[in-house]
Amino acid sequence: MTRIAVYPGSFDPPTNGHTDLVRRSLALADRVVVAVARNSTKEPLFSVSERLDMLRQAVGEDPRITYESFEGLLVDFCRGHGASLIVRGLRAVSDFEYEFQMAMMNRHLLPGLETVFLVPPEDATYLSSSLVREVARHGGDVSALVHPVVLAALKRRFAPR
Amino acid sequence: MTRIAVYPGSFDPPTNGHTDLVRRSLALADRVVVAVARNSTKEPLFSVSERLDMLRQAVGEDPRITYESFEGLLVDFCRGHGASLIVRGLRAVSDFEYEFQMAMMNRHLLPGLETVFLVPPEDATYLSSSLVREVARHGGDVSALVHPVVLAALKRRFAPR
Amino acid sequence: MTRIAVYPGSFDPPTNGHTDLVRRSLALADRVVVAVARNSTKEPLFSVSERLDMLRQAVGEDPRITYESFEGLLVDFCRGHGASLIVRGLRAVSDFEYEFQMAMMNRHLLPGLETVFLVPPEDATYLSSSLVREVARHGGDVSALVHPVVLAALKRRFAPR
Amino acid sequence: MTRIAVYPGSFDPPTNGHTDLVRRSLALADRVVVAVARNSTKEPLFSVSERLDMLRQAVGEDPRITYESFEGLLVDFCRGHGASLIVRGLRAVSDFEYEFQMAMMNRHLLPGLETVFLVPPEDATYLSSSLVREVARHGGDVSALVHPVVLAALKRRFAPR
Amino acid sequence: MTRIAVYPGSFDPPTNGHTDLVRRSLALADRVVVAVARNSTKEPLFSVSERLDMLRQAVGEDPRITYESFEGLLVDFCRGHGASLIVRGLRAVSDFEYEFQMAMMNRHLLPGLETVFLVPPEDATYLSSSLVREVARHGGDVSALVHPVVLAALKRRFAPR
Amino acid sequence: MTRIAVYPGSFDPPTNGHTDLVRRSLALADRVVVAVARNSTKEPLFSVSERLDMLRQAVGEDPRITYESFEGLLVDFCRGHGASLIVRGLRAVSDFEYEFQMAMMNRHLLPGLETVFLVPPEDATYLSSSLVREVARHGGDVSALVHPVVLAALKRRFAPR
Repeated sequence: MTRIAVYPGSFDPPTNGHTDLVRRSLALADRVVVAVARNSTKEPLFSVSERLDMLRQAVGEDPRITYESFEGLLVDFCRGHGASLIVRGLRAVSDFEYEFQMAMMNRHLLPGLETVFLVPPEDATYLSSSLVREVARHGGDVSALVHPVVLAALKRRFAPR
Repeated sequence: MTRIAVYPGSFDPPTNGHTDLVRRSLALADRVVVAVARNSTKEPLFSVSERLDMLRQAVGEDPRITYESFEGLLVDFCRGHGASLIVRGLRAVSDFEYEFQMAMMNRHLLPGLETVFLVPPEDATYLSSSLVREVARHGGDVSALVHPVVLAALKRRFAPR
Repeated sequence: MTRIAVYPGSFDPPTNGHTDLVRRSLALADRVVVAVARNSTKEPLFSVSERLDMLRQAVGEDPRITYESFEGLLVDFCRGHGASLIVRGLRAVSDFEYEFQMAMMNRHLLPGLETVFLVPPEDATYLSSSLVREVARHGGDVSALVHPVVLAALKRRFAPR
Repeated sequence: MTRIAVYPGSFDPPTNGHTDLVRRSLALADRVVVAVARNSTKEPLFSVSERLDMLRQAVGEDPRITYESFEGLLVDFCRGHGASLIVRGLRAVSDFEYEFQMAMMNRHLLPGLETVFLVPPEDATYLSSSLVREVARHGGDVSALVHPVVLAALKRRFAPR
Repeated sequence: MTRIAVYPGSFDPPTNGHTDLVRRSLALADRVVVAVARNSTKEPLFSVSERLDMLRQAVGEDPRITYESFEGLLVDFCRGHGASLIVRGLRAVSDFEYEFQMAMMNRHLLPGLETVFLVPPEDATYLSSSLVREVARHGGDVSALVHPVVLAALKRRFAPR
Repeated sequence: MTRIAVYPGSFDPPTNGHTDLVRRSLALADRVVVAVARNSTKEPLFSVSERLDMLRQAVGEDPRITYESFEGLLVDFCRGHGASLIVRGLRAVSDFEYEFQMAMMNRHLLPGLETVFLVPPEDATYLSSSLVREVARHGGDVSALVHPVVLAALKRRFAPR
C-alpha cells in the first residue's frame, strides 16, 4: 500500500523550516503532496503560483513530492488524493493548541485521517513566514533563513521603486 | 523499504489511549515495536512482563506489532531495530514541552530518527496511567478507561487483603 | 438570596459546548442570563437576534434562563442585573490567559463580582464557533457539533445561490 | 435547594490566597466544606489537625463554612456531603492543565459534580504553600503572605533548636 | 563603558506597568531610550507625539531617559543608538512565546544585542494597553491603571460629542 | 556605580547553555557572581566544589566573573554581595512560570532586586543538566552539549567499574 501524506500551509514565503519538513516527511510516507492554501480572505505577499514555484525550487526535484494548491476543506483535498496522513510542523505552545484543535476537527470530519506533528530543526524554532516577511520588508538580512530563490523574490518584492 | 516505528512508554498500566495509539501508528509504519521502559529508578505498579502481557491482550494480535522491553537510550534501541520513527502521543502543554526536548535530543543523538506526535482520541485527553492508578487505588471505577484485562489486573492489585 | 449568573459570549453561532455550559451553570446560580455581545467592530455571521433565537431553541425553555444582548462593559451589565457571577468556559491555554486577564480586570472594575470557569464536555474540547463557521462554510458536516436549529441556519447561510 | 461546595487542598500551610478563596467561594454556594487532604505518601510540614486549626483561625468563624479532612477519592467525599461543586483556585498554566485533567476525571467518576475555577487575588498570583515553606525555612519574611497564626506556627517549626 | 538599553513598544497608551518598567530598566543600563513604534499598518488611538508626551509626563524627568519614535527594524534603531540591550516586560505565556521569537530573530540579525525580560509589578499582571483602551472606551474607571495625564487624554478622546 | 549580577543555579553539570549565559550576562553587569546552590535535599551527581571547578574551566578566566556556592535564601546572598540583578535563562513555558513566581517572590523579599531573563542560544533550547546526565549515564554522546572538562568528568563518573 502506498502511503500518501499531505503537507498543507500558506508558505508565503516558504522558509528553510518548511523545506526541511517537506524532505523529512518522506520518512513517513511514500508520496508527499505539498498543498498551498488559496485563502481568498488574506492578502498574501506572493501569489499561489509564485509560492508553488519557490517551493519546487527550494526543495529540489524529487519524484515522490508533488505541489498543488487547494481551497476549501483540507479533509476533502486529502480524500481526493487518497492521503492517510496530514503532516504539520510544531514550534510553540500557541501553534500546538491551534494545531491540536485542527487535528481533532479533521479526524472528526474524516475518521482514519491521521495528523502527525514533527519538530522543527533546532535553528528554525523561531522562524515563521510572517517574521521573514516583516524583516525582509525593512531590509533585514534573511539570507540564512530562506532559500536563495526565495531571498531573490523577497528582494524584488521589497525593492525601492 | 519497510518502515519501522517504535512506540516507547511506561504503560503502567496501558490505558485505552495507549492501545488506540498503537493501532493508529500503523498508519505511519509497516511494523510497530511497542517498547516498555525498564526504568529501575521508579517503583512501578506492574512488572515489565505484566505490562507486556496487558498490552498484547489489550491491543490484540497483529503480525505487524511486536512488544519488547528496553533499557538505556531509546536511540540505541531504535538503531538496533532499524526503526526510523518514534511515535508519541500528545495531550497537554506540559507533555508538549518535555516531548519536544526529548525529540530534539534524540535527533541530536541519531540524526535521521524522526519523532512524530499524534493527538489522543477525544475521550482520552484527560487520561494518564498515573491518574488511572490513583483512581483505581481508591476503588474508583476506571472500566471505561482501560481494557477489561487491565481492569482485572488493577482489581487484583488493589484488592483488600 | 437569589444567585444570578451572567454567561457572556458571541455565540456566532452557539455550539453544543455553549448549550451544555448554559445548562451546567444552573449548578452555580438560581438564575442565568445568557448575554450575547453586540460587538459592532467585527462582522458577525448571524445577527444578534438570530443568535438569541438559536440559543433559546438549542437550550430549550427553562424559567431560570433568560437571553439578552449587551454592549459596553460587561461589569455594567452584571451590575444592572444584580449578578454576582460571570460564567465562562475554558478549553485551552490561550483561552486561559485571556480569560484570566479579563477576570482580573472585571474584579478590579467591580469588586465582589466573581468570575468562575467551567471545563467543557470531553467531546467539545476542540469546538469553537469560528471553527464551526469555517467548516460549515466549506460544506463540512457539523451536525454532531451544533443543535439542529443551528445546523439549519448554517445551511441556509452557506447555501449556494 | 442548598448548594454545597467542597474546597479541597493540602493547605500545608494555608496562605492568604487560600483563605481569600474560602471566603469567595461563598459567592457560589450556601455552604462550603474546606477539605484537607490526608495524603499519606508525602511528608507534610504540619499535621492534618494543625492545618485544620490554622484554616479555622485564618478564615474566621462562619456558620456556612466547615473544615474536614479526607482520604481516598474526592468524588466519594463530595457524594457523602451532598456537594454539587468542587472549588479550585487557578494561578498558572501548569496548574491549569493538571486541574483540567482532575476536573474531567472527577466528572467522569461522578457526573453532575461540577468543578469551578476561581482566579487568585492580584497579589497572590505567585503564592504557593511550597514557596512559603521554602522561604520560611530559610528565615525569609512571609508575614505579608500568611495569617499571623500561620506565621507563628512557621516560626515555631523552623526555630533553631 | 556606558550601557544603553532600548525599551520598545506601542504605548498606546502607556500604562502604569510601562512606566514602572522604564524606571526599573535603569537597574540594567546607564541610559534608557524609550522607543515608540511608528507602525503605519494599525490605527492607533493616540498619535506618536501624543504617546511620547504621555510617556515623558508619566515617567517624569530623568536625564538618563530619552524618548524617541522608530520605524523599520528595531535592530537598526539599536545599532544607531549604540544600544547593547533591548528591555521587554513579560506577563503571560502568549507574550513569552512571541517575545522569545523576536529576541531570537533580533540576535540573529545583530549578534551581541541582548534582549532581557523583566516581570511586571504584581498589580499589573493583567494590564495591557488594549484592555485599558477597551475599558476606557466604555466609560470604565481606569484611574488606578494609568497616570493622571493618560487618564485625562483617554477621557478627552472618548468624551461624548 | 558598579552593577553586580548573580547568576544562580545547580549546574549539575554545567552545560554549554550555562556557560554561554555566564558570558552574556556581562552585557548587563560589571561583575557577575555565578552562584552554585548547595541544596542538601537532592542527591547531586557532582559535589559543589566539582561544579565550581567545571564552571571555572568551562567559562575561562575573566576578572569580572567570580564563582561561589550558596545556601538558604537567594535574596540574602544577593544582599550580601551588593547585587542588584539576578540573571536567569529561559527555555520553555514551564521554566517561565516557575521563574516568574520566583522572581516575584524575590522582589517581594527584597524590593529593588531585579530578576532579568535571557533567551538561550538557538542550539541549546532543548538542553538541560538533567537531560545531559540521563544521556551520559547511558553512554550517549554529549560532546556537543558540554565543555570537554565536563565531558571528561561525566565519563569518569559513569565509567563501568
